[in-house]
Amino acid sequence: MKKIFIKDILAKDVFCRDIEILGWIENKREHGAIIFWDVVDSTGKIQVLLIKKNFREKWEKIKNIPSETCVKIIGDRHCFIKERQKNIEVIAKTIEILGEYKLNITPRPRSLFPIFDRKYTNYILKNRSLYLRNPKQMAAISFKSKFLYELNRYFRDNNFVFIESPVLTEMLLYDDDTAFSFNFHGRKVYLTQCCTFQLEAAIIAFEKVYNITPSFRAESSRSNRHLNEYTHLKVELAFANLEDLISLAEDILYNMAKKMVKIGEKELEFLGVKFDLCEFKPSFRRISYDDAVKIFNKEGYRFQYGRNLSEKGVSILNRKLRNKLIWVQYPPRRAEAFPFKAFPHNPNLIMAADLIAPYGFGEIAGVAEKICSKKELLERMTEKGKNTPRQLERYKSYIQLRDAALPPHGGIGMGIDRIVRYFLKLPHVKDVVPYPRLFGHRWNP
Amino acid sequence: MKKIFIKDILAKDVFCRDIEILGWIENKREHGAIIFWDVVDSTGKIQVLLIKKNFREKWEKIKNIPSETCVKIIGDRHCFIKERQKNIEVIAKTIEILGEYKLNITPRPRSLFPIFDRKYTNYILKNRSLYLRNPKQMAAISFKSKFLYELNRYFRDNNFVFIESPVLTEMLLYDDDTAFSFNFHGRKVYLTQCCTFQLEAAIIAFEKVYNITPSFRAESSRSNRHLNEYTHLKVELAFANLEDLISLAEDILYNMAKKMVKIGEKELEFLGVKFDLCEFKPSFRRISYDDAVKIFNKEGYRFQYGRNLSEKGVSILNRKLRNKLIWVQYPPRRAEAFPFKAFPHNPNLIMAADLIAPYGFGEIAGVAEKICSKKELLERMTEKGKNTPRQLERYKSYIQLRDAALPPHGGIGMGIDRIVRYFLKLPHVKDVVPYPRLFGHRWNP
Repeated sequence: MKKIFIKDILAKDVFCRDIEILGWIENKREHGAIIFWDVVDSTGKIQVLLIKKNFREKWEKIKNIPSETCVKIIGDRHCFIKERQKNIEVIAKTIEILGEYKLNITPRPRSLFPIFDRKYTNYILKNRSLYLRNPKQMAAISFKSKFLYELNRYFRDNNFVFIESPVLTEMLLYDDDTAFSFNFHGRKVYLTQCCTFQLEAAIIAFEKVYNITPSFRAESSRSNRHLNEYTHLKVELAFANLEDLISLAEDILYNMAKKMVKIGEKELEFLGVKFDLCEFKPSFRRISYDDAVKIFNKEGYRFQYGRNLSEKGVSILNRKLRNKLIWVQYPPRRAEAFPFKAFPHNPNLIMAADLIAPYGFGEIAGVAEKICSKKELLERMTEKGKNTPRQLERYKSYIQLRDAALPPHGGIGMGIDRIVRYFLKLPHVKDVVPYPRLFGHRWNP
Repeated sequence: MKKIFIKDILAKDVFCRDIEILGWIENKREHGAIIFWDVVDSTGKIQVLLIKKNFREKWEKIKNIPSETCVKIIGDRHCFIKERQKNIEVIAKTIEILGEYKLNITPRPRSLFPIFDRKYTNYILKNRSLYLRNPKQMAAISFKSKFLYELNRYFRDNNFVFIESPVLTEMLLYDDDTAFSFNFHGRKVYLTQCCTFQLEAAIIAFEKVYNITPSFRAESSRSNRHLNEYTHLKVELAFANLEDLISLAEDILYNMAKKMVKIGEKELEFLGVKFDLCEFKPSFRRISYDDAVKIFNKEGYRFQYGRNLSEKGVSILNRKLRNKLIWVQYPPRRAEAFPFKAFPHNPNLIMAADLIAPYGFGEIAGVAEKICSKKELLERMTEKGKNTPRQLERYKSYIQLRDAALPPHGGIGMGIDRIVRYFLKLPHVKDVVPYPRLFGHRWNP
C-alpha cells in the first residue's frame, strides 16, 4: 500500500535518500541532457529531475515517455534556493512505468483548459472517465465530497436519524409520466422522485429524519439545472410548521456555507470563486407567489398564474430583488404536489416555499407542510387524478398513516448538485457530478 | 419547532411548572380516578399522571384515548422516591390530541413483541410504515444510521474522496439478465450492480476513493441475506495489491466494530446483543478456495468446483473453522467477474478474496485486484460473452482506461446491510433496512 504521498515528501525538512514517488507526469520539459517532470499525485506536485548520465542507454526511451504516464520514481530529495524561494526537487535514480498513456487526445486530461466552458460539454461527457483527473474537475469533485460529509455531520450533530429509502418505489410525488418505470417481477415500479412517503412514516419513530440519495426525473429539459438523476437531500420533521422549516433550511445553508469557506478554501481559491458568506446569513428575504406574479406583470412578462416559476421569472426576481436568496412562499394549490398542506385561511394557496438563488442559479430548495388529515389528502389526490382504485392501492400505506398518530409535520428538499454548483459558481449542474446523466447526451456513464 | 424533548425533561433537576411534552402514548394504566400514561418521543419515556378532578367532564373522553395516540401535554414535573429510586412524573393540566390513532391492529406498533421472528415477516413487510416506530425496529435503524455516519467518517479521516456514481448505467459487473433494465429515452439502461467502473476512473485523479449507494441485483433468491436493492460500499485504491486490500478491509471492519461498541451501546444492549470485539481483531484467518473445496469433500458435501461458495459450504466452513471471520482467497477464474485480475502464477485462479462471517451470517465483503492490461481485459470479456460489438461499445470507456495511465489497483466491496445485520445478530438482512425490497413479497415500499 502506498504510504508516502507527495505532500509528505514536500513536508520533510531534510535531505532524503531513496525516496519513492508514485504518481503521474503532469508536464515535462527537456533541456539537452536533463529532463524535468512535474509529477503529481492526489496530494500535490513535485519536480523530478532526470539526468542523462544516470540512465545511459535508456535515455532515448525515457525522452519518449509522454506526459500523463503513471510512474514510480526512486530518487534523492534535495532542497535548493532559487529566486529567494525554497524549492524541492527529487533527482531520479530509477524510474518504472506503472500505467502507460497511449492516447492522443487534446486537450490533454491534466492540462489547464476551460473545461467547464460550454463548447466542451459534449466532448467532456463522451470522455468523462478521462477528464476526472483534470485539476479543475478534481477541485469541484473534491469540494462536493467534503460538502456531502459536512452535510451528514450537520444532521448527526443535530440528532437527525438517517433513514435509507428505496430507489424502487410505487409512490411518486408527481405524475407517473414524469418518472422512469420498469417491470419488477411482473409489477410496475418507478424510480423514486422524492422519499417524502418513506420519511413521513419514520418521523413517528424518530421525529427528525433525513436522507441523501439519488432521485430521478424523466424530464427532457435542456436547462443547465436539470439532470435525470441527481443527489437529493430530504429532511422531515415532526411538530414543525412552515416557519420552522424555513428557519431550519436557512440554518442548514448558512452552516454549510460557513463550513465550506473553511474546509473548501483550497478548491474555492483554485477555481477562483469569490464566496460571500453574508449572502447566506439568515433570515433570507421572502415574497409571496402572488407578489412575484405582480412583479412579472409590471415587467411586461406574461406569466400564467398557477404554473411553477419559469427560468425567465426567476431571472426577473434575481434582478428586481438585487441578487439575494429569496423565498417565494404560498404557491397556488394547482402548482404543487398533492401531499402539501393548504393554507388554512385560503385553501387556494399551499403552505410551502421555494428558495431561489441569486445570479440565475435558480431554485435550490423547497419546504412544505404536509397534510395530516385523511380527508384533505384524499381530496388532493382526487384533484391530481390519483384516486383510481389502482392509485389508492399504491398509496395505501401513505393514506393509512393519517390514521396512525401522525403529528403535524413538514419537510425540506434540497438539490445538492445545484447548491454545490451555486457555491462554486459553475456554469452547469453537471460540473459537480462525476457521471452526470443529461437528457439528449448519449454516452455510457 | 419542538425544542424540549423528553430526555431534557428527565435531565432537569428541579420542580418545573407548565412543561410541554410532545410525544406518543406507549402504554396506559387506569386506576379509578387516575390514569397513567407512559409517553415516549424519540429521546425517552416519561410517566404522565392524569387526575380526574383536573379534567372533569372531559374525563370519559380522555379514558378512551387509545395507546399510540400523538399528544401534547402541559403539566408540572415532579420528583418522587419510590422503592428507594428517584422517579419523575408529569402531572397533566391540559392535553391535546395532535395525531389520532384509529387503527385496530395487533400486535400494537409500539408493543414489545418478537418483531424479527420469521412468523411476522409477511405481516410486517405489508405494514412496514406502521412498525418503524417499534422500539426494537427503531434500535436497529438507529444503529444503522450511526454506522453509516461512522463509515463516512472513517473514509474522511483516511483521506478518501467520495465519488458519486450513477444508478443508471450501461456497465454491469455480471450478466445482463441479472440486472434490472428499462428504456431510457430509447436506449436500454440498467440499474447499477457495482460502481467499480466509475471508481476505477476516479483513482487516476484521487487514488483513494469510495462510494456508498444502492446497488441492485435482479435475483430471485429467498435466502435471508438477499435484497433486490441494497446498500453497497465500494472502495477503490491505486497502487494496491491483494494484501493491501485485505489489510484495509480488516482495518475498516475492526474500526467500525470498535466505534459501534461505544456509540451503539444503547441499541446493542436493548437488542440483547453480545458483541465480541476480539472477533474483529486483524488479521483474520485465510484459506484458499481450493482448500475450502477439500474440506467440503472431506465432509461428504459434493460441491461443484468453480461455483461460488454455497450457503451450505459457508456453514461447513463456519463449523470447521470455529466460527471465525475467514477470508476465502484465490477463487477459480470462471467463478469471478471479468474485471478481476488473474493470479500471475496460475491464471486459472483470481487475485481476490471473499470474507465469510461466522454463525451463518455469510459473505459480507469481497476484495479483488483489477486488470490493468487491455489484452487481459478483452480476454476476460470474451470468456464472459461480453465481446460483441454492442458490448464493446458499452464498456468502451472502461476498456479505454487501460490506455490512459491506470495504475495497479484494486477494490473492496461490502454489503452494509449484511454487516449491520451481523453486528446486531438479527435473523434477516431486511431487519436493518427501513424499506426492504424482497423477492416474492408484494407490497409498495
